[in-house]
Amino acid sequence: MGKQSSRPFLMTRNLHPEVQESPIHFLKKNIISNEFFYIRNHFPYPNIHQGNFEVTIEGNVMYPYHFHLAQLRQLPSVTIDLVLECAGNKRSKFSPKVHGEQWEDGAIHQGSWRGVPLKDLLAITGIGQGAKEVLFTGHDMGEKGKSPHASFSRSLPIEKALHPDTIIAYECNGKEIPYKHGAPIRLIVPGWYAMASVKWLKSIAVINHRFDGPFQTDDYVYYPHQNSKEDSFPVTKINVNSTIQKPLNYSKLKRGENLVRGIAWSGNGPISKIEISYDNGVTWEKAIKEKNGVTSFYAWESWTYLWNIDKPGEYVILSKATDSTGSQPLEPFWNQKGYGYNAVHRTHVKVE
Amino acid sequence: MGKQSSRPFLMTRNLHPEVQESPIHFLKKNIISNEFFYIRNHFPYPNIHQGNFEVTIEGNVMYPYHFHLAQLRQLPSVTIDLVLECAGNKRSKFSPKVHGEQWEDGAIHQGSWRGVPLKDLLAITGIGQGAKEVLFTGHDMGEKGKSPHASFSRSLPIEKALHPDTIIAYECNGKEIPYKHGAPIRLIVPGWYAMASVKWLKSIAVINHRFDGPFQTDDYVYYPHQNSKEDSFPVTKINVNSTIQKPLNYSKLKRGENLVRGIAWSGNGPISKIEISYDNGVTWEKAIKEKNGVTSFYAWESWTYLWNIDKPGEYVILSKATDSTGSQPLEPFWNQKGYGYNAVHRTHVKVE
Repeated sequence: MGKQSSRPFLMTRNLHPEVQESPIHFLKKNIISNEFFYIRNHFPYPNIHQGNFEVTIEGNVMYPYHFHLAQLRQLPSVTIDLVLECAGNKRSKFSPKVHGEQWEDGAIHQGSWRGVPLKDLLAITGIGQGAKEVLFTGHDMGEKGKSPHASFSRSLPIEKALHPDTIIAYECNGKEIPYKHGAPIRLIVPGWYAMASVKWLKSIAVINHRFDGPFQTDDYVYYPHQNSKEDSFPVTKINVNSTIQKPLNYSKLKRGENLVRGIAWSGNGPISKIEISYDNGVTWEKAIKEKNGVTSFYAWESWTYLWNIDKPGEYVILSKATDSTGSQPLEPFWNQKGYGYNAVHRTHVKVE
Repeated sequence: MGKQSSRPFLMTRNLHPEVQESPIHFLKKNIISNEFFYIRNHFPYPNIHQGNFEVTIEGNVMYPYHFHLAQLRQLPSVTIDLVLECAGNKRSKFSPKVHGEQWEDGAIHQGSWRGVPLKDLLAITGIGQGAKEVLFTGHDMGEKGKSPHASFSRSLPIEKALHPDTIIAYECNGKEIPYKHGAPIRLIVPGWYAMASVKWLKSIAVINHRFDGPFQTDDYVYYPHQNSKEDSFPVTKINVNSTIQKPLNYSKLKRGENLVRGIAWSGNGPISKIEISYDNGVTWEKAIKEKNGVTSFYAWESWTYLWNIDKPGEYVILSKATDSTGSQPLEPFWNQKGYGYNAVHRTHVKVE
C-alpha cells in the first residue's frame, strides 16, 4: 500500500457501438499512446480474421488488384505524424445545442502512421478514363436508415486519393494498427476530418460517378440552416482550431504566474501563430510554440503561455490559432449536425 | 482479433490530486464494482503502511483507546448497502455556473460497507461530560488556505456519531477497502454527503466545542447568495435526487417504445415514488421501481419507464423522486460553492 499513482482514462460516450473520448486535458505527449486514442464507431466491431488481411482494388481500373497485408509491407512506405479529429469534436459547445455524440475537446488524437501511398497502388492497377472518385469500404456494417446491413463507405475525389500523403496504412506508432483503430489496414487521409480515414479497409473502387452513400450525403454534411437542407456542403478538411488543455474549464487558480498550455492544428498545414486573450478578444498576446519533435505538415502545434495575474476575479482565457488561410472565428459556424466546431477556445477560471 | 468488447472507464476530472467520475450512465448493477467508484481527493494520497493500521480514540473520553485493524475485525459488525455521493455531484448543471470540479452525474456510487458501529467503540472508551462533537482526521494532508500541512478533518454532532449506522468500516463489497477509497479503515456516515465519510482514518476525538476546520466551515457550506456569506449552513444530509441513466442527454431515439431507466436516492431514507414527465412537468407518470436485491434504508432505487413515443421531434424527459419529506424541486437551490444540486433531472432527446 505504498504511494498510489493516478492516470487518465478514456471518457465513455457510448458502448454499443463504442464511442470514447480522449482525456486530452491530461495528455502531454505529442504522439499519443494508442490507449488514449479517441474511439468513434458507427457499427459493432467487425470480426477481423486472416481472410480480412486482403484488400481489393476494383472498379474502373485496368488491372484489378487483390493485395495482402504481407505484400503491402514489401512496398516503399512513408510515415506521417498527423492529427485525426472527429468532425463532431466540440459538438457539445454549439448553441443552439445539437443532438448527437456530446463530444467535448477530446475527439482528437495524434499518431504516427506508416503506409503505402495509394497513388503507388493505383499506379499498379492503372486508372480508367472518366474516373471521378475512389470509394473505400470498411468491414464494419450494421443498420443505417432503412438499410439493415449498410457498410461504412466513403469516397474521395480522385485528386485527393492520388495525393502522395493519402496512404494505405498498416502501422500506427511503430506497431500494427490496434484492432479498435482499423486493423490490419486503414485508409489515412491527412488533413481531413477522420470519417475519411476508413477503418478495417476491405475494398477500394475507382468510380466514374459521385458516390451518394449515407455517410457521404446524409451524415458528414454541413447543413447551415435550422429548418432546411439548403446551402449544404460536405465535411472535408479540418478547420484551423485550438484547445486550451490547462487550466481546466471552471477551475480555480492562485494569483501569480499560471501556465496556460494547449494545442493548435489545421488541415491547411502549419499554424503560423497562436494568440491568447483574457479580455474577451480586445487584446491578444502571442503564445510560445513548443519544440516538440513533431514537425509534420499535419501535426498539431503545442504551445504555452505564462499568464501573470494578480487581480482576483473571474476570467475567460481565449486561444486563437491562425494558419495560412485565416484564424479561428470568435463564434462557431452553426450547422444542423454539429460538425467542424472551431470557434476560439474559451476557458473560464476564477483567480483567488 | 476476434470480436472486441467495450467497457466504460472513470472520467478524469483531475490527476493531482486525483478526481475521477463514475461512468454512471453505463453502469447497470446496484452494488458497483470498486473500479467504477468515483474518486475525490483533496490532497495527494497518503503513504499508508502497517503503522497506519491503528486508530486512536482520544479527547473527552474516560479511557482513551488505540485499536488495531485486527482488533476491529473481532468486534460485532454490521454491513450496510449505501450511496456515497459527493456534495458537488451535478455541479456543472448550476446556472449561473459555479467554479470547482465540473461533476456531471457520476460523483456517486453504491457499495456494501462492513464495519463496527462507532457507538460500540465509544462505549468502550466512555464519553466525558459536555461532549458536543466527534472529530475525525484522515492520514491525507497538504496545502489548504494558509496552512501548508492541513489534514483532512471533519466533525459530526455527537448524536450522529452515536447513530447505530455510523460505522468504522474495514470492508467494502466483501473485501478490504480499496486503497483509493480509504484503506484500511474509513468512517462511513450513511445518508450524509460523502465528505463526512473520512478516508484513511487516523484518529477520532470527542470534543466539547464546535470544530471549525476549513473542510467544515469554509468548504462544504451552503452560501445561498452571490456576493455575501449570509444565511450559510453546513452541508450534511443527501438531498432527495434522481438521475436518468438512459437515454443519454442529447441523444437521438427511434420512434416507438424506448426504455428510460435511472436511479433515485435520498439521505432521508426510502424513495416513495419516481415520476417521469415529457411535457416539461405539466403531467407526471409513475416509473416502476425495479426489484434489485438491495433494500437498505440508504440505497438507491433503480427504476424504469417504458416511453411510447410516435411523434418525431425534440423532447425533454424529466425525472422526479419523492421521499418522506418531499420531492425534487424543478429548479436547483443555487449556492456559491455548488453543493447539493437536486433539481429534477432533465434529459434532452430527439425522436426521429
